[in-house]
Amino acid sequence: MTTHVHVIGTGLIGASLGIALTRAAYAVSLADQSPTSAALAQDLGAGLVRDLAAPAPDVVVVATPPDVTAGIVAAALAQWPTAVVTDVASVKGAVLTVLLDNGSDTTRYVGAHPMAGRERSGVVAARGDLFEGRAWVVAPAPDSTAAAVAAVEAIGRAVGATVVRLDARTHDAAVAAVSHVPQVAASLVAARLEGLSDQAVGLAGQGLRDVTRIAASDPHLWTQILAANAPAVRDVLTRIVEDLNDVVQALDALIADPGGPAGGARAVLARAIAAGNAGQARIPGKHGGAHTAYEPVVVLVPDRPGELARLLHDVGDAGVNLEDLHLEHGLGQPFGLAEILVVPGAVGQLTTALEGRGWRLHA
Amino acid sequence: MTTHVHVIGTGLIGASLGIALTRAAYAVSLADQSPTSAALAQDLGAGLVRDLAAPAPDVVVVATPPDVTAGIVAAALAQWPTAVVTDVASVKGAVLTVLLDNGSDTTRYVGAHPMAGRERSGVVAARGDLFEGRAWVVAPAPDSTAAAVAAVEAIGRAVGATVVRLDARTHDAAVAAVSHVPQVAASLVAARLEGLSDQAVGLAGQGLRDVTRIAASDPHLWTQILAANAPAVRDVLTRIVEDLNDVVQALDALIADPGGPAGGARAVLARAIAAGNAGQARIPGKHGGAHTAYEPVVVLVPDRPGELARLLHDVGDAGVNLEDLHLEHGLGQPFGLAEILVVPGAVGQLTTALEGRGWRLHA
Repeated sequence: MTTHVHVIGTGLIGASLGIALTRAAYAVSLADQSPTSAALAQDLGAGLVRDLAAPAPDVVVVATPPDVTAGIVAAALAQWPTAVVTDVASVKGAVLTVLLDNGSDTTRYVGAHPMAGRERSGVVAARGDLFEGRAWVVAPAPDSTAAAVAAVEAIGRAVGATVVRLDARTHDAAVAAVSHVPQVAASLVAARLEGLSDQAVGLAGQGLRDVTRIAASDPHLWTQILAANAPAVRDVLTRIVEDLNDVVQALDALIADPGGPAGGARAVLARAIAAGNAGQARIPGKHGGAHTAYEPVVVLVPDRPGELARLLHDVGDAGVNLEDLHLEHGLGQPFGLAEILVVPGAVGQLTTALEGRGWRLHA
Repeated sequence: MTTHVHVIGTGLIGASLGIALTRAAYAVSLADQSPTSAALAQDLGAGLVRDLAAPAPDVVVVATPPDVTAGIVAAALAQWPTAVVTDVASVKGAVLTVLLDNGSDTTRYVGAHPMAGRERSGVVAARGDLFEGRAWVVAPAPDSTAAAVAAVEAIGRAVGATVVRLDARTHDAAVAAVSHVPQVAASLVAARLEGLSDQAVGLAGQGLRDVTRIAASDPHLWTQILAANAPAVRDVLTRIVEDLNDVVQALDALIADPGGPAGGARAVLARAIAAGNAGQARIPGKHGGAHTAYEPVVVLVPDRPGELARLLHDVGDAGVNLEDLHLEHGLGQPFGLAEILVVPGAVGQLTTALEGRGWRLHA
């Protein structure tokens, strides 16, 4: 029996979901406050714009901007008294609180958060493979039925995502720590570059580039996200302010007692960096597996089309699997550095093979 | 006439410098408090262990751990009254202050900071190409002679680096903002992951990986660096604490007035993210050129040896120059995503070419 999914909101996420579900043989209907957006989503193969006489949907997906999600979920639960309703907002507690407060039937509500997005937004950026290989968090309400949870999990799997079940509070605390707070940190570190001279900012290395890459994110979207997850983000940020104050105090002690013991200030700094080592080691490695300490092999790559491909071809020929790759660009030089990460046991084999093919390995 | 450079300290930087200068036809002598390390550096081609009867060097390079650098520079200036003395410590003001305080002849002192390093330390990790394409900051004392500055700049150029002249205070403020504070931020953000469940930390995406990559750095080394640059690091960190407190206050206002105007709290959040946009845009692009907004083309790459090479080969065949590359790994999926960054005008051409060769492009 074909499942009928009604998608409300045909922006990037809603339209991409419609395309993916249609391909997966779901019957998809569409609605958007902009008739143009809904019609365009239909043209892209995301489903059919919903007819007023259409039968009630089995599942409703609310894929609107986060600041209106809760109200639209509540209206959908009321309008279709047998439908399962889900939403894709990136913060789950805020939606659930509104539904519980206004007495919605949350046995049929199951929140979701597909961990997917792209630089561009809107229906024209939609792609049917947006969710492939991504996490699809499913956050049931306290009284969601097993059938409702199963229906929402099936949607995540149907579009190629990996389903992860978390309650709303755990989800929101997790994304605060792994996404929202890193965004704030990157933005504040990048903001400190404004006062530097060009020469000074020219000393930037790969470390700064990595730390601040996401500082290029959209202020309007991030204001909505941070506001919706204010309590969880606040909890993590206040811990970071405490840690920062400890570091500043240690630096003050060192400034007051240069070269002296400075009341154990060095131990405070060492502990802060060591705690970061421990936290960083918890981030899962490739494909969500355990964190593995790969070893780098760094190669000088001339800045000409095809050179990087030739290098990676030679890596493949060496019988070594490339686990990760970073590119770094030299200051004022006509080449870059490719940092190839491999399992420690493969370093010798790869080094010999690449040097044998004339590559210059670099420190 | 051959210039005679005496390198004190044959760790990674000193031994690498010896190898590079020997290749550049300098006469290099070596000293280290560990006779084994000095002998090993000699075996690696870094120069000859210094004979007591040897003539005075023209230039002395102090490449010891930062916490003993100033004392050894002062002793070298006193021992060889005609030699130019430089050092490679990553913080310049602390060394200069000691020299000025103890009345050293700073007309012959010129500080330096090669912006190079690698994951491993010690003489066995030394490489003659460690400095190629890197910045080599030269920080003269207020009364350094032009000849002394020229001698130290010549060494940087001889080893393939790009010389950047900055006074010690400007250098230290710059590295505080572009290197030392990003390190602290990455460590403190990573430290907040410790309390999360495996499932929660499993939601980590590329943003978190980027922000926290350098959180894996060595606590012992970073304690020395942060302590040596305490005043400049403190200045930047206190500004970040102020900005963080503004963000926390805005979140508090939103918690107290959920969905309401919250006294302009959203504008505070939007300004913080927008300031990060502006700062991030100041980081120079590839090869030190102006920052360019490259556009991403994202491709699904099966996790088999050789697939990435085949992809990059096809990119080269498309006549498109790859400007940067990021790899991302799907959660629990047997493939990764390759984000290829190209100039905006090349996106259409590349997309068509890759789709024509059967690659699956991804949002």
